[in-house]
Amino acid sequence: MLTLYFAPNTCALAPHIALEEAKAAYALKRVDFGAAEQTQPAYRAINPKARVPALATPQGVLTEVPAILAFVAQTHPEAKLAPLGDPFAFAQMQAFNSYLCATVHVAHAHRMRGRRWADDDAAIEAMKKKAPENVGACFALIESAMFRGPWVMGDAYTIADPYLFTLALWLEGDGVDPSRTPRVAEHRKRMGERPAVAKALADDGA
Amino acid sequence: MLTLYFAPNTCALAPHIALEEAKAAYALKRVDFGAAEQTQPAYRAINPKARVPALATPQGVLTEVPAILAFVAQTHPEAKLAPLGDPFAFAQMQAFNSYLCATVHVAHAHRMRGRRWADDDAAIEAMKKKAPENVGACFALIESAMFRGPWVMGDAYTIADPYLFTLALWLEGDGVDPSRTPRVAEHRKRMGERPAVAKALADDGA
Repeated sequence: MLTLYFAPNTCALAPHIALEEAKAAYALKRVDFGAAEQTQPAYRAINPKARVPALATPQGVLTEVPAILAFVAQTHPEAKLAPLGDPFAFAQMQAFNSYLCATVHVAHAHRMRGRRWADDDAAIEAMKKKAPENVGACFALIESAMFRGPWVMGDAYTIADPYLFTLALWLEGDGVDPSRTPRVAEHRKRMGERPAVAKALADDGA
Repeated sequence: MLTLYFAPNTCALAPHIALEEAKAAYALKRVDFGAAEQTQPAYRAINPKARVPALATPQGVLTEVPAILAFVAQTHPEAKLAPLGDPFAFAQMQAFNSYLCATVHVAHAHRMRGRRWADDDAAIEAMKKKAPENVGACFALIESAMFRGPWVMGDAYTIADPYLFTLALWLEGDGVDPSRTPRVAEHRKRMGERPAVAKALADDGA
């Protein structure tokens, strides 16, 4: 049995959708960010980074979205969520997820979480101001150079899809007009029609 | 045949070491950051992100350190650079690499590349000022909660080792005293004694 530690409106939605797509046996545990539960000793014992997601498995706890996504795909091969037999295609998919994790999510985080990288209020304001430009540039690159269609990697739906979908949900909040990247916008719409996505979104907001 | 696009003193050193460890057939191509070659159309055709590393393979180009590292391990199984038959252990290793990529490298980047996230000079100065604290906190967490020893994942040397080594080389430059994390410091020393690492370092500086 797996347990996904999540908070609503976070990148934990990506593995949440992947678990649904994989028809995995899992439980959800909501971490109460409003009460700063992620910083408390009980949660730090699960994930010392004090972040979500974390996936508790019978072998131990996993963190980091790209790692959890690949784990779900590898342990549920019948769901065909990754090109498991093709190291090059697997690496391309991982490169996409790594870009989302280390560049796109980081660009987004500078809007609301600037205090991670500076103590000065004016600096935090300056980061916030630049976030729409940076997030917009990331999605422009995805649209023009990375996204294949109809799914991220082409004809096959993979774990890159729920991850892109999750970050694309934040576009309006980041001050980026989704119509500037029509293929990503269309992907977001198509994702929303999948039963696994509807289920995960409903659980996320519950 | 593989070609690694690199620049000295960048995270491209990690896949460079991994290719040496794997005894892979590869060529090196240095990208001249001094001449901003990474931003020119010729290099953007290889990697539209205008960064290093990029690994050209017969099937196409790969980017992102965690993805390239896993690709090297999967395509050179005889080198035993990753727990390929154990999805949980593989995911733990990937989680470590993802943390290096999306948190540690990003913390480091705020010292020299603040202009990515703000336009204002004072803000960039504020980020630079906080970088030693952030990089130090990352390495303290690695030391206390993530590093197993003697190698990152325990008894087995994996692709997480060259990646940690590469980022640990930047500690002094980031204003962090390596003696604060003695196990990581010892790992850095032990890594330096490996012939593959010596070879990659020599090529890197050449």
